[in-house]
Amino acid sequence: MVFELTILGTNAAIPAYGRFPTSQVLCVNHRYYLIDCGEGTQIQLFRYKIKINKIHAIFISHLHGDHYLGLMGLLNTMNLRGRTEPLYLHAPKGLQEIITVQLKYSYSVLGYPIYFIETNQEESVLIFEDEKVTVHTIPLLHRIPCCGFLFREKAKDRNLMKEKIPTDLSIAGRIALKKGEDAIYQDKILKNEDYTYLPNKRRSYAFCSDTIYLPSLVETIKNVDLLYHEATFTHVHEKRAAQTFHSTGEQAAKIAQQADVKRLVLGHFSTRYHDLTPLLEEAKTVFPNSFLAIEGETFSVDE
Amino acid sequence: MVFELTILGTNAAIPAYGRFPTSQVLCVNHRYYLIDCGEGTQIQLFRYKIKINKIHAIFISHLHGDHYLGLMGLLNTMNLRGRTEPLYLHAPKGLQEIITVQLKYSYSVLGYPIYFIETNQEESVLIFEDEKVTVHTIPLLHRIPCCGFLFREKAKDRNLMKEKIPTDLSIAGRIALKKGEDAIYQDKILKNEDYTYLPNKRRSYAFCSDTIYLPSLVETIKNVDLLYHEATFTHVHEKRAAQTFHSTGEQAAKIAQQADVKRLVLGHFSTRYHDLTPLLEEAKTVFPNSFLAIEGETFSVDE
Repeated sequence: MVFELTILGTNAAIPAYGRFPTSQVLCVNHRYYLIDCGEGTQIQLFRYKIKINKIHAIFISHLHGDHYLGLMGLLNTMNLRGRTEPLYLHAPKGLQEIITVQLKYSYSVLGYPIYFIETNQEESVLIFEDEKVTVHTIPLLHRIPCCGFLFREKAKDRNLMKEKIPTDLSIAGRIALKKGEDAIYQDKILKNEDYTYLPNKRRSYAFCSDTIYLPSLVETIKNVDLLYHEATFTHVHEKRAAQTFHSTGEQAAKIAQQADVKRLVLGHFSTRYHDLTPLLEEAKTVFPNSFLAIEGETFSVDE
Repeated sequence: MVFELTILGTNAAIPAYGRFPTSQVLCVNHRYYLIDCGEGTQIQLFRYKIKINKIHAIFISHLHGDHYLGLMGLLNTMNLRGRTEPLYLHAPKGLQEIITVQLKYSYSVLGYPIYFIETNQEESVLIFEDEKVTVHTIPLLHRIPCCGFLFREKAKDRNLMKEKIPTDLSIAGRIALKKGEDAIYQDKILKNEDYTYLPNKRRSYAFCSDTIYLPSLVETIKNVDLLYHEATFTHVHEKRAAQTFHSTGEQAAKIAQQADVKRLVLGHFSTRYHDLTPLLEEAKTVFPNSFLAIEGETFSVDE
């Protein structure tokens, strides 16, 4: 089952060098979750052939323009494409008002409901749950209220030991075993622990943008399979990073190392860097399994 | 002196096939006027090497998203680029509220003043004037309040008959002649009409998007050098055009013909058309001097 992140935009503040502002899509078993939605996100979705009405829920980290200004156009396009399915929209206080005023002056009524859920930037809390994932907020420290998002696969059914299961065991019997119960087969009880085993652990993805270097977030994202952490500057501009409540590549790598994550993806690059190699190199010296977020690239997490 | 239009975006409703939503820049003698500002306009300005802080004034036809959703990002970028010069922003009622609420929730204060001027969609009135142009509204008929814009070069100084002017005539004398006054040279009066002639007529550009086929606008745009008229559909979809308050290529050409303009530029193409040739061909059968608006193309009007 697929668990993969596709990068749609990766630049900070201003689009430059073909790099779009922040946006990405997490796909978990054919369900799409959009994370941030900078200007041009719908153009990028079109480019990378992701059907916009497959997006089930949207998560906005904060209300700086480079993280949400593509949203209104996307909502309009979802409508023009005939969406009727509800959309879950998680964002800081204010976004509902921003959308409502724009619908008012364009005399528009969307053909689908939006469920607005205000995020909590103070503590890590569960904000979303469906049959595939849970999503918790990750408190971040930026110039305005801001949080990241921690996605975890839902606990899966137990796996059957196929070689031991009687070939004519009923479907009801198989479902019972998968759910952790015993099954009955020809007046015998098949004990669950003899016929099933625990699947691999739940896969996880943590999105952390924008934030000053914040070691306190390590505990929340401990051991995730994939971490995206902003890396607006190189360590040469560490002071500037702190002043603007951003991080360096080196600091992002320290967080990855301390949280013992499997892979680190760096993004939210300042327009001052055309060539991103130095940024990647400084991260790799601290955390070798570091990668650059590049538009159109996909990071898969295996089962 | 330059008088030229550069196309930044030309698609209707949804970006598609590399076509961006409506936006264009008129340059008159090194001064830039932005007309509509669909999502991605700042990306297009960057692509076509137009410095965003050279934009002096912005004109928004109506508040459908494909005509203004690039504005907030552009205003932020102007700020990040250090703008202090005032910006004149002409738009229907509502845009000021839309911008103000977004500045509020991003805790932003722009480093330059914006002068909001609400447009009048009911009649053609002068809404802007500087030393280079005048701008009048063009009432259009769309699903929501909407107007186009008529740009006219300001009346120019008179041209000097260089072969007749004494070579040592003072600068003050030359300025007087250019301004239409007589000049004094060695106790003689140089009569203005003997030493100057009227320059060519004032160049003009009319922007008409979005609108149903509206013959009443012919009078306002009579004889302009360059007309942009929306052509969302081909004549095959004329009924659909009327239902959605849009025009066909053929109808745009009829307006151009009736107004006796010099050149017609067609734009605001429906996403249903990948190949735009049929749209251009139907316009040319009515008005041969028709062209397609293509991103990055420039239409110059000679002096």
